[in-house]
Amino acid sequence: MPTIFTRIINQELPAKIFYETDVLLVIADHRPKDKVHLLIFPKTEYRNLIETPSDVLQQLFEVVKIIAKKLELEDHFRILINNGYGQEVDHIHLHFLSDRGPDKLTFLDD
Amino acid sequence: MPTIFTRIINQELPAKIFYETDVLLVIADHRPKDKVHLLIFPKTEYRNLIETPSDVLQQLFEVVKIIAKKLELEDHFRILINNGYGQEVDHIHLHFLSDRGPDKLTFLDD
Repeated sequence: MPTIFTRIINQELPAKIFYETDVLLVIADHRPKDKVHLLIFPKTEYRNLIETPSDVLQQLFEVVKIIAKKLELEDHFRILINNGYGQEVDHIHLHFLSDRGPDKLTFLDD
Repeated sequence: MPTIFTRIINQELPAKIFYETDVLLVIADHRPKDKVHLLIFPKTEYRNLIETPSDVLQQLFEVVKIIAKKLELEDHFRILINNGYGQEVDHIHLHFLSDRGPDKLTFLDD
Protein backbone atom coordinates (compact mmCIF):
# COMPACT_ATOMS: atom_id res chain seq x y z
CA MET A 1 0.00 0.00 0.00
CA PRO A 2 1.64 3.29 -1.06
CA THR A 3 1.91 6.01 1.59
CA ILE A 4 -0.20 9.17 1.30
CA PHE A 5 2.96 10.99 0.22
CA THR A 6 3.51 8.55 -2.64
CA ARG A 7 -0.14 9.02 -3.61
CA ILE A 8 0.41 12.79 -3.64
CA ILE A 9 3.51 12.31 -5.81
CA ASN A 10 1.43 10.11 -8.15
CA GLN A 11 -1.27 12.82 -8.21
CA GLU A 12 -3.83 10.44 -6.76
CA LEU A 13 -4.34 12.81 -3.83
CA PRO A 14 -4.41 16.62 -3.91
CA ALA A 15 -1.86 18.76 -2.05
CA LYS A 16 -0.61 22.32 -2.03
CA ILE A 17 2.84 21.95 -3.59
CA PHE A 18 5.32 24.57 -2.47
CA TYR A 19 8.50 23.31 -4.14
CA GLU A 20 9.56 20.32 -6.22
CA THR A 21 12.73 18.75 -7.58
CA ASP A 22 13.41 15.44 -9.31
CA VAL A 23 13.95 13.75 -5.98
CA LEU A 24 11.67 15.49 -3.49
CA LEU A 25 8.49 17.40 -2.87
CA VAL A 26 7.56 20.17 -0.42
CA ILE A 27 3.89 20.53 0.52
CA ALA A 28 1.79 22.33 3.11
CA ASP A 29 0.81 20.22 6.12
CA HIS A 30 -2.97 19.98 5.98
CA ARG A 31 -3.18 20.32 9.77
CA PRO A 32 -0.63 23.09 10.42
CA LYS A 33 0.84 23.22 13.91
CA ASP A 34 2.43 26.62 13.36
CA LYS A 35 2.09 29.70 11.14
CA VAL A 36 4.30 28.04 8.53
CA HIS A 37 4.19 24.24 8.46
CA LEU A 38 5.67 22.55 5.41
CA LEU A 39 6.59 18.91 4.85
CA ILE A 40 9.68 17.96 2.85
CA PHE A 41 9.93 14.37 1.65
CA PRO A 42 11.75 12.34 -0.99
CA LYS A 43 9.84 10.83 -3.89
CA THR A 44 11.32 7.47 -2.96
CA GLU A 45 9.43 5.86 -0.10
CA TYR A 46 11.97 5.41 2.72
CA ARG A 47 10.17 4.32 5.87
CA ASN A 48 11.97 6.63 8.29
CA LEU A 49 15.13 8.61 8.98
CA ILE A 50 17.14 5.48 9.79
CA GLU A 51 16.40 3.97 6.37
CA THR A 52 17.06 7.14 4.39
CA PRO A 53 20.44 7.17 2.62
CA SER A 54 22.87 9.87 3.52
CA ASP A 55 22.84 11.54 0.09
CA VAL A 56 19.05 11.80 0.15
CA LEU A 57 19.14 13.39 3.60
CA GLN A 58 21.69 15.83 2.29
CA GLN A 59 19.33 16.81 -0.53
CA LEU A 60 16.44 17.26 1.90
CA PHE A 61 18.54 19.67 3.94
CA GLU A 62 19.71 21.55 0.87
CA VAL A 63 16.04 22.23 0.22
CA VAL A 64 15.49 23.29 3.83
CA LYS A 65 18.02 26.03 3.15
CA ILE A 66 16.30 26.99 -0.12
CA ILE A 67 12.88 27.18 1.54
CA ALA A 68 14.18 29.21 4.48
CA LYS A 69 15.64 31.70 2.01
CA LYS A 70 12.47 31.85 -0.11
CA LEU A 71 10.42 32.59 3.01
CA GLU A 72 13.02 34.99 4.50
CA LEU A 73 13.09 32.75 7.57
CA GLU A 74 16.79 31.90 7.57
CA ASP A 75 17.00 33.06 11.19
CA HIS A 76 13.72 31.68 12.47
CA PHE A 77 12.51 28.14 11.83
CA ARG A 78 12.80 24.67 13.23
CA ILE A 79 13.05 21.21 11.73
CA LEU A 80 11.37 18.21 13.32
CA ILE A 81 11.84 14.63 12.18
CA ASN A 82 9.71 12.01 13.91
CA ASN A 83 11.25 8.56 13.55
CA GLY A 84 8.60 6.15 14.82
CA TYR A 85 8.01 8.43 17.81
CA GLY A 86 5.09 10.66 16.77
CA GLN A 87 5.50 9.67 13.12
CA GLU A 88 2.11 9.56 11.37
CA VAL A 89 3.20 8.52 7.87
CA ASP A 90 5.76 5.77 7.29
CA HIS A 91 7.58 7.77 4.66
CA ILE A 92 10.44 9.98 5.86
CA HIS A 93 9.45 13.64 6.05
CA LEU A 94 10.89 16.76 7.59
CA HIS A 95 8.57 19.24 9.27
CA PHE A 96 9.58 22.84 8.56
CA LEU A 97 7.95 25.06 11.18
CA SER A 98 7.90 28.75 12.00
CA ASP A 99 5.66 31.14 13.91
CA ARG A 100 6.76 33.90 11.53
CA GLY A 101 6.69 34.17 7.75
CA PRO A 102 4.27 35.48 5.14
CA ASP A 103 0.56 35.53 6.01
CA LYS A 104 -0.16 33.62 2.85
CA LEU A 105 2.28 31.23 1.22
CA THR A 106 2.46 31.10 -2.55
CA PHE A 107 2.29 27.60 -3.96
CA LEU A 108 3.46 26.33 -7.34
CA ASP A 109 -0.10 25.85 -8.51
CA ASP A 110 -1.45 29.20 -7.25
CA MET B 1 32.91 34.64 23.26
CA PRO B 2 32.92 30.85 22.76
CA THR B 3 29.56 29.07 23.06
CA ILE B 4 28.87 26.76 26.00
CA PHE B 5 29.34 23.83 23.62
CA THR B 6 32.79 25.05 22.64
CA ARG B 7 33.61 25.45 26.31
CA ILE B 8 32.49 21.85 26.91
CA ILE B 9 34.69 20.73 24.00
CA ASN B 10 37.59 22.67 25.55
CA GLN B 11 36.86 21.01 28.91
CA GLU B 12 36.19 24.36 30.53
CA LEU B 13 32.69 23.22 31.45
CA PRO B 14 31.61 19.77 32.64
CA ALA B 15 29.18 17.59 30.68
CA LYS B 16 28.07 13.98 30.52
CA ILE B 17 29.65 12.82 27.24
CA PHE B 18 27.77 10.02 25.55
CA TYR B 19 29.74 9.72 22.30
CA GLU B 20 32.61 11.51 20.61
CA THR B 21 34.35 11.58 17.25
CA ASP B 22 37.00 13.86 15.78
CA VAL B 23 34.33 16.21 14.48
CA LEU B 24 31.46 16.04 16.95
CA LEU B 25 30.30 15.45 20.48
CA VAL B 26 27.13 13.93 21.96
CA ILE B 27 26.16 14.99 25.48
CA ALA B 28 23.16 14.74 27.78
CA ASP B 29 20.93 17.82 27.86
CA HIS B 30 21.16 19.15 31.39
CA ARG B 31 17.45 20.01 31.37
CA PRO B 32 15.97 16.92 29.71
CA LYS B 33 12.59 17.36 28.03
CA ASP B 34 12.08 13.62 27.55
CA LYS B 35 13.27 10.27 28.95
CA VAL B 36 16.24 10.39 26.60
CA HIS B 37 17.46 13.83 25.60
CA LEU B 38 20.86 14.04 23.95
CA LEU B 39 22.51 16.89 22.08
CA ILE B 40 24.67 16.24 19.03
CA PHE B 41 26.91 19.06 17.85
CA PRO B 42 30.03 19.60 15.73
CA LYS B 43 33.26 20.70 17.36
CA THR B 44 33.38 23.57 14.90
CA GLU B 45 31.15 26.43 15.99
CA TYR B 46 28.60 26.89 13.20
CA ARG B 47 25.92 29.34 14.30
CA ASN B 48 22.92 27.41 13.06
CA LEU B 49 21.63 24.86 10.58
CA ILE B 50 21.78 27.33 7.69
CA GLU B 51 25.50 27.92 8.25
CA THR B 52 26.43 24.26 8.71
CA PRO B 53 28.10 22.70 5.65
CA SER B 54 26.38 19.77 4.04
CA ASP B 55 29.15 17.28 4.84
CA VAL B 56 29.05 18.20 8.52
CA LEU B 57 25.27 17.74 8.61
CA GLN B 58 25.78 14.37 7.01
CA GLN B 59 28.17 13.38 9.78
CA LEU B 60 25.74 14.56 12.46
CA PHE B 61 23.05 12.32 10.99
CA GLU B 62 25.40 9.37 10.68
CA VAL B 63 25.85 9.68 14.43
CA VAL B 64 22.08 9.94 14.94
CA LYS B 65 21.88 6.48 13.40
CA ILE B 66 24.71 5.18 15.59
CA ILE B 67 23.10 6.54 18.76
CA ALA B 68 19.68 5.14 17.85
CA LYS B 69 21.27 1.73 17.38
CA LYS B 70 23.26 1.93 20.63
CA LEU B 71 20.08 2.78 22.55
CA GLU B 72 17.92 0.25 20.64
CA LEU B 73 15.68 3.16 19.67
CA GLU B 74 15.88 2.81 15.89
CA ASP B 75 12.08 2.75 15.72
CA HIS B 76 11.33 5.37 18.34
CA PHE B 77 13.00 8.76 18.52
CA ARG B 78 12.72 12.23 17.11
CA ILE B 79 15.20 14.86 16.00
CA LEU B 80 14.60 18.55 16.58
CA ILE B 81 16.78 21.32 15.19
CA ASN B 82 15.94 24.84 16.30
CA ASN B 83 17.32 27.40 13.88
CA GLY B 84 16.87 30.75 15.58
CA TYR B 85 13.31 29.74 16.55
CA GLY B 86 13.65 28.30 20.07
CA GLN B 87 17.43 28.02 19.72
CA GLU B 88 19.16 28.63 23.06
CA VAL B 89 22.80 28.24 22.02
CA ASP B 90 24.17 29.79 18.83
CA HIS B 91 26.07 26.65 17.90
CA ILE B 92 24.22 24.14 15.71
CA HIS B 93 22.93 21.17 17.70
CA LEU B 94 20.50 18.35 17.10
CA HIS B 95 18.16 17.29 19.90
CA PHE B 96 17.75 13.50 20.05
CA LEU B 97 14.59 12.74 22.03
CA SER B 98 12.69 9.65 23.07
CA ASP B 99 10.16 8.70 25.74
CA ARG B 100 11.59 5.18 25.70
CA GLY B 101 15.11 3.84 26.18
CA PRO B 102 17.23 2.66 29.08
CA ASP B 103 16.40 3.98 32.55
CA LYS B 104 20.00 5.02 32.95
CA LEU B 105 22.26 5.96 30.07
CA THR B 106 25.88 4.92 30.16
CA PHE B 107 28.30 7.75 29.43
CA LEU B 108 31.89 7.59 28.26
CA ASP B 109 33.17 8.75 31.61
CA ASP B 110 30.96 6.46 33.75
